[in-house]
Amino acid sequence: MNMMRDDSLPRAFAQVRTRSLELAEGLSDEDCVAQSMPDASPMKWHLAHTTWFFETFILEPREANFAPFHPAFRVFFNSYYNGVGNKHPRAQRGLLTRPGMRVVRDYRANVDRRIADLLAGGIDESLATLIELGLQHEQQHQELMLTDVKHLLAQNPLYPAYATDAMAPSAPAEPLAWLDFEGGLAEAGYGGKGFCFDNELPRHRTYVAPFALASRLVTNGEYRAFIEAGGYRDPALWLAEGWDRVNSGEITQPLYWVEQADGWYEFTLHGLQPLDAERPVTHISMYEADAFARWSGARLPTEFEWEFAARQACLGSGPAHHPDAASGAGLQQMFGACWQWTSSSYAPYPGFAPAPGAIGEYNGKFMINQYVLRGSSCATPGGHARPSYRNFFPTGARWQFSGIRLAR
Amino acid sequence: MNMMRDDSLPRAFAQVRTRSLELAEGLSDEDCVAQSMPDASPMKWHLAHTTWFFETFILEPREANFAPFHPAFRVFFNSYYNGVGNKHPRAQRGLLTRPGMRVVRDYRANVDRRIADLLAGGIDESLATLIELGLQHEQQHQELMLTDVKHLLAQNPLYPAYATDAMAPSAPAEPLAWLDFEGGLAEAGYGGKGFCFDNELPRHRTYVAPFALASRLVTNGEYRAFIEAGGYRDPALWLAEGWDRVNSGEITQPLYWVEQADGWYEFTLHGLQPLDAERPVTHISMYEADAFARWSGARLPTEFEWEFAARQACLGSGPAHHPDAASGAGLQQMFGACWQWTSSSYAPYPGFAPAPGAIGEYNGKFMINQYVLRGSSCATPGGHARPSYRNFFPTGARWQFSGIRLAR
Amino acid sequence: MNMMRDDSLPRAFAQVRTRSLELAEGLSDEDCVAQSMPDASPMKWHLAHTTWFFETFILEPREANFAPFHPAFRVFFNSYYNGVGNKHPRAQRGLLTRPGMRVVRDYRANVDRRIADLLAGGIDESLATLIELGLQHEQQHQELMLTDVKHLLAQNPLYPAYATDAMAPSAPAEPLAWLDFEGGLAEAGYGGKGFCFDNELPRHRTYVAPFALASRLVTNGEYRAFIEAGGYRDPALWLAEGWDRVNSGEITQPLYWVEQADGWYEFTLHGLQPLDAERPVTHISMYEADAFARWSGARLPTEFEWEFAARQACLGSGPAHHPDAASGAGLQQMFGACWQWTSSSYAPYPGFAPAPGAIGEYNGKFMINQYVLRGSSCATPGGHARPSYRNFFPTGARWQFSGIRLAR
Amino acid sequence: MNMMRDDSLPRAFAQVRTRSLELAEGLSDEDCVAQSMPDASPMKWHLAHTTWFFETFILEPREANFAPFHPAFRVFFNSYYNGVGNKHPRAQRGLLTRPGMRVVRDYRANVDRRIADLLAGGIDESLATLIELGLQHEQQHQELMLTDVKHLLAQNPLYPAYATDAMAPSAPAEPLAWLDFEGGLAEAGYGGKGFCFDNELPRHRTYVAPFALASRLVTNGEYRAFIEAGGYRDPALWLAEGWDRVNSGEITQPLYWVEQADGWYEFTLHGLQPLDAERPVTHISMYEADAFARWSGARLPTEFEWEFAARQACLGSGPAHHPDAASGAGLQQMFGACWQWTSSSYAPYPGFAPAPGAIGEYNGKFMINQYVLRGSSCATPGGHARPSYRNFFPTGARWQFSGIRLAR
Repeated sequence: MNMMRDDSLPRAFAQVRTRSLELAEGLSDEDCVAQSMPDASPMKWHLAHTTWFFETFILEPREANFAPFHPAFRVFFNSYYNGVGNKHPRAQRGLLTRPGMRVVRDYRANVDRRIADLLAGGIDESLATLIELGLQHEQQHQELMLTDVKHLLAQNPLYPAYATDAMAPSAPAEPLAWLDFEGGLAEAGYGGKGFCFDNELPRHRTYVAPFALASRLVTNGEYRAFIEAGGYRDPALWLAEGWDRVNSGEITQPLYWVEQADGWYEFTLHGLQPLDAERPVTHISMYEADAFARWSGARLPTEFEWEFAARQACLGSGPAHHPDAASGAGLQQMFGACWQWTSSSYAPYPGFAPAPGAIGEYNGKFMINQYVLRGSSCATPGGHARPSYRNFFPTGARWQFSGIRLAR
Repeated sequence: MNMMRDDSLPRAFAQVRTRSLELAEGLSDEDCVAQSMPDASPMKWHLAHTTWFFETFILEPREANFAPFHPAFRVFFNSYYNGVGNKHPRAQRGLLTRPGMRVVRDYRANVDRRIADLLAGGIDESLATLIELGLQHEQQHQELMLTDVKHLLAQNPLYPAYATDAMAPSAPAEPLAWLDFEGGLAEAGYGGKGFCFDNELPRHRTYVAPFALASRLVTNGEYRAFIEAGGYRDPALWLAEGWDRVNSGEITQPLYWVEQADGWYEFTLHGLQPLDAERPVTHISMYEADAFARWSGARLPTEFEWEFAARQACLGSGPAHHPDAASGAGLQQMFGACWQWTSSSYAPYPGFAPAPGAIGEYNGKFMINQYVLRGSSCATPGGHARPSYRNFFPTGARWQFSGIRLAR
Repeated sequence: MNMMRDDSLPRAFAQVRTRSLELAEGLSDEDCVAQSMPDASPMKWHLAHTTWFFETFILEPREANFAPFHPAFRVFFNSYYNGVGNKHPRAQRGLLTRPGMRVVRDYRANVDRRIADLLAGGIDESLATLIELGLQHEQQHQELMLTDVKHLLAQNPLYPAYATDAMAPSAPAEPLAWLDFEGGLAEAGYGGKGFCFDNELPRHRTYVAPFALASRLVTNGEYRAFIEAGGYRDPALWLAEGWDRVNSGEITQPLYWVEQADGWYEFTLHGLQPLDAERPVTHISMYEADAFARWSGARLPTEFEWEFAARQACLGSGPAHHPDAASGAGLQQMFGACWQWTSSSYAPYPGFAPAPGAIGEYNGKFMINQYVLRGSSCATPGGHARPSYRNFFPTGARWQFSGIRLAR
Repeated sequence: MNMMRDDSLPRAFAQVRTRSLELAEGLSDEDCVAQSMPDASPMKWHLAHTTWFFETFILEPREANFAPFHPAFRVFFNSYYNGVGNKHPRAQRGLLTRPGMRVVRDYRANVDRRIADLLAGGIDESLATLIELGLQHEQQHQELMLTDVKHLLAQNPLYPAYATDAMAPSAPAEPLAWLDFEGGLAEAGYGGKGFCFDNELPRHRTYVAPFALASRLVTNGEYRAFIEAGGYRDPALWLAEGWDRVNSGEITQPLYWVEQADGWYEFTLHGLQPLDAERPVTHISMYEADAFARWSGARLPTEFEWEFAARQACLGSGPAHHPDAASGAGLQQMFGACWQWTSSSYAPYPGFAPAPGAIGEYNGKFMINQYVLRGSSCATPGGHARPSYRNFFPTGARWQFSGIRLAR
């Protein structure tokens, strides 16, 4: 979302904020309070935390006679900003039955009104920058709202659907082709004039050797063949850590695959569905992506290989509740289907400097023991993707829409 | 609740079932779904499980053309009956956002209607016995509903109150007196004609040496003196296991005590309240009860000492949300204030035999590594207490209304 | 070992102390330093701790100009006496490669000489009592030396033997008979004039209903039949806690049974041996003892039932490295084969009072969440057994020579 | 160790093999069997495993009528090679009291003799390559022998010394200077003709921006200033994961620092020594290296920055038991003092391909969630270091001689 810094900002603010509430439609208050694992947060917490962000980083320093909506929320809805003070323990977010959803809606309405008042008073560069950051931040949480609620519903043996519309039948995926890239000495990182996160900067020079990328993501059918060929039983295919997780029974198949008497199913936001061989495999760990790549005689791309290739790719279709099969020619599914694991650890670019103050905790302090995923997914809000965007998760994370782009 | 086995049974059924719903009044749907620890269950789960009990053990074998309200509930709301089939994992009861409270209320209404139909068709001895068991079972869960929701609300830094009425100021507790008992060879276990649980049987002979019991429970003021005297710092006062828990920081004061700048507070169902020195100390582990007793030169009673003394005690006042201070003469607070830790492990009486079938899993299989608490608490439903009643918990459990009766 | 309090005491001291060193013969220094689990201690630690006991409780208060053999040993070889000061962490006893075995032998020789000097100076009642306690304590550790080294050697896939002599072939066990006992009001606890531990006192009155005891222990053959009948697959046979351990895979068969292509084997101190159907089953948890009893329509005895019956039993044969099959008439194997799980939790007798000071930590502080085993085992030193002796372990402990005596 | 592939190979073989045994001199058999944590291995295991490597990868495929020294050793002393079969559980290496040290010495002598026989029969290219790999492998283990035994001895409150000679007093460290490097497009990875590990290949092109490196390592005195300035109390200095470990109490100071009443001490292979302010800080995690760098306004170098600079550095002095203070001019302590944490995750170089078969498990499968350390340490065998050498450990590892080289 590359916002114009003028009268379009209040409109963008209203749109993004409204979108978050729309994501909670169809969910009960009970659905919105529960937390299925420490990594995932309740829908209600997302709705409140994104509001806390505006209240803390914009209203508090700028509003005359600022008073918090509720003093306790400063702690309740702080995610990880040590510079702002205490935090409610992450694993216990699901126990905050009070404030209830009604109060959180009031909290949102209150902060929205005050931000609107602030914007009506004039928008300087610094305010526009913070509003943009707050909206980009909220869009990131919109994706998490979907993946977190999916994880919660998946714990329920009834496999309830989040989206009540039917899942459209899928056309056959395009055959996989290999696209060659010359590489060379080139620039990486964001170089435009719009918004980007601090971890996309500074734009810097890097050298990339010649490489080839697969034209599309690996499909469910291809991944099923890997399973049937004994992929989860051959240690030679796995990183040592991955094999440990396979052996401990932690990893046996993609996170939401369910084997029943009549074959494979996949839990989706549309409920439990027969596994669609043409759609991309998703909800896999980096270990699985790496093992599949090794099995198929390929490898995962580095984040720079991916970025250089992506500059010629289409930003993809609008958001959906499940990734579609690949269609079209050339480089497909770089955006809008699944995040793509790269072999690059999440590290600062040369010369990286976080912003001063608590807001500088946004990205830099997580640059350790995580790996970069590139692209965007079906759950990414429209306008949020770009070639230089760096998503990142620990190697074992599977509840995001993560998939496999092969390289060689 | 010693029910007449005639037309009073349908009335008792309606009363107990209604009471459970009353306990959920004032709670939001969010409050009813959350689970604060594996030992505690969500209010919604209690409401459904007590209904499942009637559906499974009464409707299923007796209703012509029985069909379950919902097939999945058979698993969802089974607590621990292996004989009935699979169970939803205990620690994940808080993730069952579906069915929602509305559906669970429908479930209750549906089963209530069908039970009423069954009762209208005539009540034989065996049906009456099962209905009684189901109601006694539900009353046990009514106490857990209160202690479980108290534990949940205690996790919230806002310390929300369950009961909105003010907590009445407490009169001074009666001075503690020692009452002597002769002991001797006597009968233990239930000997009446009304309802009792299988663990109270068979009535049997046992020998008890002469002993003395304290006339009332230990007060908060007395327990605070123990703390101030360094009770939690002296290993000589503690069982080895208890000292390990003290050293690990797991046990430092009664579960719901909160120390603030201006002194001690106690979280109650009425919210956070200044610690009332006259009321009985409650929410303590057996380790703490034992250490306090040793510090005061006394000991905990055996369950038989307690039972013999209790036969001359009043069954106490009606249920409340917090135990009152002791008042009156003679043996006080045997019932209606706090459950009282005994030094007796929970073991079968000589000749104990559980009922055949799944219903026999009610008590016997838990007779290991737990200790008996006797009496009843402020949260025990009226009519549920009796001298032979055996409550039981692991030594570290603290979320029940557990207190200290001294013996010597 | 009921010692005469005269010139026999120095001789007994020398015999017991020598016996401990004999138990380490045939072991390398490496065998003596390793610790296979926190519950078990290295042989070297046992040799040093039993010496520490004499140094701390006898030499320190009685020797003029007492100086410790090594100041650090006060902490290194303290097992659990808080009253004596700090303790080396139990789970890290195997990391004490220094002092080495040579120094520990010197430590033993040094303390032995000083105790001998003390005894040569005259033996008053109080000194005799402490020496006796120290020797009884060392004999308890002699049994642990065998069970702990057995556990260590069992971790080695080579199954090395501790005892190099062959294991004698076993005669058929006597058929199991039921012996009836009248019960009644009787005395329990030690009533003689010799040594006993504080947990056997005070002798007190208790009532025991009529009961029957099996004439001998359950055999390997009988236990194998339980396994083959699906005993480990039927939850109705198990205490709830036991079933949890079965389900988690923690308990699947007796601790040292090994199934190979050609049948069952048992790891013994003589190395891996074909399972002998006639010998008593051993190295089982209380859960398994209880489940087997339930499967066979019987139950475990209480500790008082056992004690009353034992008063007519033979104290059994001398120590060995594995229990023999039952032979003879009447009540067999009460002593000298396997410790026998009872259904009694380990609790203080009425009026129990531990000794003042650190030595009072010997027994009382462990009287929680453990169950009593009665009798003695093949590893118990000669003269150490008596009908009132109370051994105790947590319900899951299996590395002792524990077996099953049925009651009904 | 860049060996001539002719008659010098048998001599190198004998030297390296002898050196391993020398490292065990002065240790008792008890010292050699114990394992202080799963990451560390017993000395005896190292001596056996390095022998197993020659037996498995050289004798087994090349010896006519090969028979293993002992069939069980194939499993006992396999570290992590899935391709070779089963492995003894890593955390239980300390329980292998059999075979004893005597047998392991026999094992070494036996394999040494057979390898010598093999070499006497003629050395082809492929044999020379494998022998070289085996010797390089053994040298890597020689460093671990020292760091593992240091960790074991550090668990002993007596702080026993491994090296009995006194620790030489240290001269003042050279003042820290910043050395500038131009960077640019350059080659990384091994480009010589001698031995290197597969993870140093292929040599490839990479781009490095201009940078500066500190002339020497960070000293104990500088690190103590960081502690005294509250470095362990300021979350703004730490990566989020590092701060979690600080908060949990896992990380509070360098691993072997000990604070006593009269100041800081450091446990070394020479025993407990007063902290020497001039020597480099060592035994720190990457989190601590990163936090110190941030506190001092610098950063850690990337592995390529380090490698480019190292090409002009001296390979350092011979091995010692503790790192010396910096001396001399220019780039100091690149080798021979402490391994230096880089900000680079351990990843395959472009085009990396492991060797076929089990020996290919040497490096590649660990290329995840670890970070590269460059240089060498005082414990690295002579001749083992080179600018392209890549050591790697998880971010929390501290028992290696790891230190801090600043960059900016």
